Amino acid sequence: MDFSSKLLENAVYEMSQLPGIGKRTALRLVLHLLKRPNEQTSKLTNALQVLRNDIKFCSNCHNISDTATCEICASPRRDKSLVCVVEDIRDVMAIENTSQYNGLYHVLGGKISPMEGVGPQDLNINSLVKKVKLGEVKELIFALSSTMEGDTTNFYIYKQLEGLQVRTSTIARGIAVGDELEYADEVTLGRSIVNRIPFENSLKAN
Amino acid sequence: MDFSSKLLENAVYEMSQLPGIGKRTALRLVLHLLKRPNEQTSKLTNALQVLRNDIKFCSNCHNISDTATCEICASPRRDKSLVCVVEDIRDVMAIENTSQYNGLYHVLGGKISPMEGVGPQDLNINSLVKKVKLGEVKELIFALSSTMEGDTTNFYIYKQLEGLQVRTSTIARGIAVGDELEYADEVTLGRSIVNRIPFENSLKAN
Repeated sequence: MDFSSKLLENAVYEMSQLPGIGKRTALRLVLHLLKRPNEQTSKLTNALQVLRNDIKFCSNCHNISDTATCEICASPRRDKSLVCVVEDIRDVMAIENTSQYNGLYHVLGGKISPMEGVGPQDLNINSLVKKVKLGEVKELIFALSSTMEGDTTNFYIYKQLEGLQVRTSTIARGIAVGDELEYADEVTLGRSIVNRIPFENSLKAN
Repeated sequence: MDFSSKLLENAVYEMSQLPGIGKRTALRLVLHLLKRPNEQTSKLTNALQVLRNDIKFCSNCHNISDTATCEICASPRRDKSLVCVVEDIRDVMAIENTSQYNGLYHVLGGKISPMEGVGPQDLNINSLVKKVKLGEVKELIFALSSTMEGDTTNFYIYKQLEGLQVRTSTIARGIAVGDELEYADEVTLGRSIVNRIPFENSLKAN
């Protein structure tokens, strides 16, 4: 693209470094900011800069936090014997939104993926094992995505925990609530039959 | 969404004010910045802030520019008797990319749209009429989008120019290069037949 302004070109370039934002979209976003009052741009840039400079990660669960220990880990009403292992911060938010979980979290920061050069040492696995060794945790719930990488990560952590007194579980896989059976894939449908639950349990949730 | 951090919530909110960016996308973009080195965020926020503070609009054609008069208007190699009327800055870029146009531009900043509360006084129409009255412009090329609003804007400007010595033209509408006739809509195909051009002319471009 031929920009008549170096400033514009630079802003579009930086914007297009964000994932899923191509040059055209970046241009549209930047021109939108130019049409708006100056303060909208200041608000955006300040919010991003303050976040980047001041954000902390919880020393216990590695969740994003404004303080050294996140709200969830600090809360006295949370069950500290239950730890849900997730890939990233968005998964914490997703589970929190269900209002069905009352334990703590442990954010790994990704999953083991040799293809992308992510090994166990790049993830927050050591701190998880340490936490379990302290003996306070009774159950680990694996809530990683059910891909090859997710399964590998689950298994790696499982192996690290050998000999330790801790129960492990994974979240249930099955047909989504509201979905039609006939459109479900065979693997999911198969798992949901093998791992069927007592009918009374299905009445508990919601 | 339930954010564990006010800073994050604020950054996501500001990001989601951009057009086409919902809360989820905003969160993905912001978390991406958090994963990257601090300097990527600084570069982005600086580029946006500098652009917003220092950008100028060309006093002649209203195109975006780093200087008081844009490169195109300042160029001695441009044909100053030819002015192409466009909606916004992106149209200038699109036409410049074709390398087929050697005249100047006039950026209206939108089109007349009563539905969106945009009247003629909100657009750079007066400065265009003034420019034509100075007598240097020999031809105006209307290159607005062929919608109701675009046609209204064309016609309004055309009326304002009554009695002035200036030729007016619009860009050709027709089947796109490389497109199959059978898939073209009737209006476009109809126009491309009515406004057919001498065969020799079609050999000139490219």
